[in-house]
Amino acid sequence: MNNKIPLLLRAMRGEQIDRIPFWYMRQAGRYLPEYNEIRRGKSFIEVMENPDHAFEISMQPLRRFQMDAIIMFSDILTPIRAAGIPLHFEEKKGPVLEKTVQSEADLDIFRNFDAAKACPYVVEILQRLRAEIEPLPSRPALLGFAGAPFTLASYLIEGGSTQKFEKTKACLFKDTELFLRLSDVLADLTIEYLKMQFKAGADAVQIFDSWGGILSPAHYAEFSAPFTKRIIDAIRQAGKPVILFVGNGSHLLGQMNGQKPDAISLDWRITADQALSQVDSEIALQGNMDPLVLYGTPERTRKETLKVLEAFGRRSRYIFNLGHGIHPASGLDNVQAMVETVKSFKLA
Amino acid sequence: MNNKIPLLLRAMRGEQIDRIPFWYMRQAGRYLPEYNEIRRGKSFIEVMENPDHAFEISMQPLRRFQMDAIIMFSDILTPIRAAGIPLHFEEKKGPVLEKTVQSEADLDIFRNFDAAKACPYVVEILQRLRAEIEPLPSRPALLGFAGAPFTLASYLIEGGSTQKFEKTKACLFKDTELFLRLSDVLADLTIEYLKMQFKAGADAVQIFDSWGGILSPAHYAEFSAPFTKRIIDAIRQAGKPVILFVGNGSHLLGQMNGQKPDAISLDWRITADQALSQVDSEIALQGNMDPLVLYGTPERTRKETLKVLEAFGRRSRYIFNLGHGIHPASGLDNVQAMVETVKSFKLA
Repeated sequence: MNNKIPLLLRAMRGEQIDRIPFWYMRQAGRYLPEYNEIRRGKSFIEVMENPDHAFEISMQPLRRFQMDAIIMFSDILTPIRAAGIPLHFEEKKGPVLEKTVQSEADLDIFRNFDAAKACPYVVEILQRLRAEIEPLPSRPALLGFAGAPFTLASYLIEGGSTQKFEKTKACLFKDTELFLRLSDVLADLTIEYLKMQFKAGADAVQIFDSWGGILSPAHYAEFSAPFTKRIIDAIRQAGKPVILFVGNGSHLLGQMNGQKPDAISLDWRITADQALSQVDSEIALQGNMDPLVLYGTPERTRKETLKVLEAFGRRSRYIFNLGHGIHPASGLDNVQAMVETVKSFKLA
Repeated sequence: MNNKIPLLLRAMRGEQIDRIPFWYMRQAGRYLPEYNEIRRGKSFIEVMENPDHAFEISMQPLRRFQMDAIIMFSDILTPIRAAGIPLHFEEKKGPVLEKTVQSEADLDIFRNFDAAKACPYVVEILQRLRAEIEPLPSRPALLGFAGAPFTLASYLIEGGSTQKFEKTKACLFKDTELFLRLSDVLADLTIEYLKMQFKAGADAVQIFDSWGGILSPAHYAEFSAPFTKRIIDAIRQAGKPVILFVGNGSHLLGQMNGQKPDAISLDWRITADQALSQVDSEIALQGNMDPLVLYGTPERTRKETLKVLEAFGRRSRYIFNLGHGIHPASGLDNVQAMVETVKSFKLA
C-alpha cells in the first residue's frame, strides 16, 4: 500500500483501501465560523482572488475534519471574469454579470485564453496548497475544478443565476448555432484552465455542470455532453483524473457514464441500485447524500450517512460526498456526526 | 365509439381513439393576450375567486386552440387560503403566506374542511364550465386539481416559494412527526376538496406534487408518496380518474407507478423508453415536452412535438402535454405549431 498516493486517488483507481475516502462540495464555506471570520467586510471576489485568503479558506475544513481531499477555494466563473466579463457576487442573489453573450462577436474574448497569465492567483493558491499538504503523513488529494461549458454558457446568456432558464433555452432553440459555438470556445478555454491547474499541483479535477440537469436527455446530448466529453478526453489523454458532476442530473447518468470520466458525482435523486446498474465498474462513484440532511439532528444524520455508506460501500471505487454543496446553516454537530460515521465505517 | 365521452377520458381508459388528445398545464395564463386583458388592474386572487372571470379565463385557451380538456382556473393554494391561511400573490415572487405552520396547534384549521362551503366559487366555476361544454359536439374533458400534501406542506413551512427548501427539509429531518401529521391533515382536506370538484362537474382531477422531485427516492417514500397514495385510493374508490404529476420527478417514476393513478404526467427529464419501461400498461402517460421549446421557432417546435408524439404514440393511453406549465413568453406561433402538429398526427 503506497501511502504517498492519497486515499481518494487510490479509491478512484479501484485499489485496495481500508476505509471510504470523503470530502464534500463547498466544504470551505459559510457553515464554518472561521470562514465567516475571514469574509467579514470583504467581498467574495476579494477573498477568492487573494492567495493568502483563498489558501487559508481552503485549509479550514481540513483542520477541523481531516477530509481526504481539499478543493481550492474559487468559483466556476473565475476564468470567465479573468477572460474579460466583469461580474460580482451579491448575497443571496449570486453572480451578476455586467456583460452577456448576444452574438458571435462576443465569443472572441474567450479565445486564446492563457490560464496562468489570466488567473495567476489560481496558480499560486494551488501551489501553496500542494506545498502545505505534501509533507502530511497521509496527505489529502488536492482538487481543482471548472464549470462545464453548458453551465458557463447559461450564466453568460442569463447574466446571472436563474430558476427558469428562459433566456438559455430561448437561445438553445432559436440561436442554436450561437449556443453551440459559445460552448465550443468555452470547452477550449476550460481545457486550458484545467491543464494549468494540474501543472500548479492539482491531483484531480471536478467538472461542475451545475445546470445540466435542466435539460431533457435529448437536449443534454445535443447541448452539453459533447463539450464535457471533449474536456474529459483531453484531461484523460494528459493522464490525469477527472470527476463529472451534473446537478439534478440523475436522468442523465447513462450519458455521463458514456463520457468515461474517472468518477461521477451523484446528487441524491437516485437510489444506489439505479446508479450501480448504470455506471461501469471501472468508473468511480461519489456522493448521493442529500446535503439538507445536515439541517436535521445528529441522530438522523448518522442514520442517513450510514444508509449511503452501506449502499455504496459494497462497490470498490466509491467516495463519500454530498449530492450538492453543503448549505450555509448546516449544523456543525451534524457535520461532525457525518464525518465520524464515514471515518468509522468498516469496509468488509 | 361513444362521442359523448371526451376523447381524453377514452384515451385514459385505453379505448380505441383516432388521434392523440392534448391539453397543456397552465393553458389559461399569461402567454395569452386575452388573459392579460382580463387581469389588467386586478390581482390574481381577484380573478381566481370571481366565477365570472375564472370561467372566462378557463374558456379562453379552448376558444383559440380547441384542446381536449379545460382545467379550471385556480391555484393549488386556494383551499389553503380558504381554510384560513391569509396569503397573496406577488408578481415574479409567487405566493406569500402570512402565517406558517410551526407546531401541532397550527394544524387545527385544516381539520373538518367543508370544501363547498369554504370555496363556493370553485363549485360555481366548475358547474358553469361543465354546463358550457356539455352541449359541444365532441366536448373537452373538464379537469379539476389539487396540490399534493407534500407540496402544500412545503409552502406552509416556507411561507412561500423557495429554491432551496431549507426550512422544509429542516422540518423533515428535525420535526419529522410534525411534518407527517401536517401531511396527514392535508391529505384529508385534499380528498374532501377533490370530491367536491367531482360533484361540481369535473371529469378527472390532477394532483400537482410540484416540489416532490426535490426528494430522494427514500425521502419521497417517507414524506410524500403515502399521502398522494391515500388521495389516489380515495378518488379511485369513488370511481373517478386521477392524474399524478410530480415536478422534476423522473427519478420517482417507479414509485408514482406504484400508487396506481389512472395517469402519470411526465416532465421532460426522461426518455420515452425509460418511462415506458417503468409504467404499467394500464396507466396512461401524459406530457414529456419541455415547455421552453415554445421559446424557440415554429420549425423547432414542430420537430420537438413530433418527436414526443412518435415516441409515445405507439402506446395506447397517451395524452400530449408539456412537462410543466407553459411559460409566459411562449410565442403564440409556436403554440399554434405545437397544436397543429398534435392534431394532424395520424395514429397508425
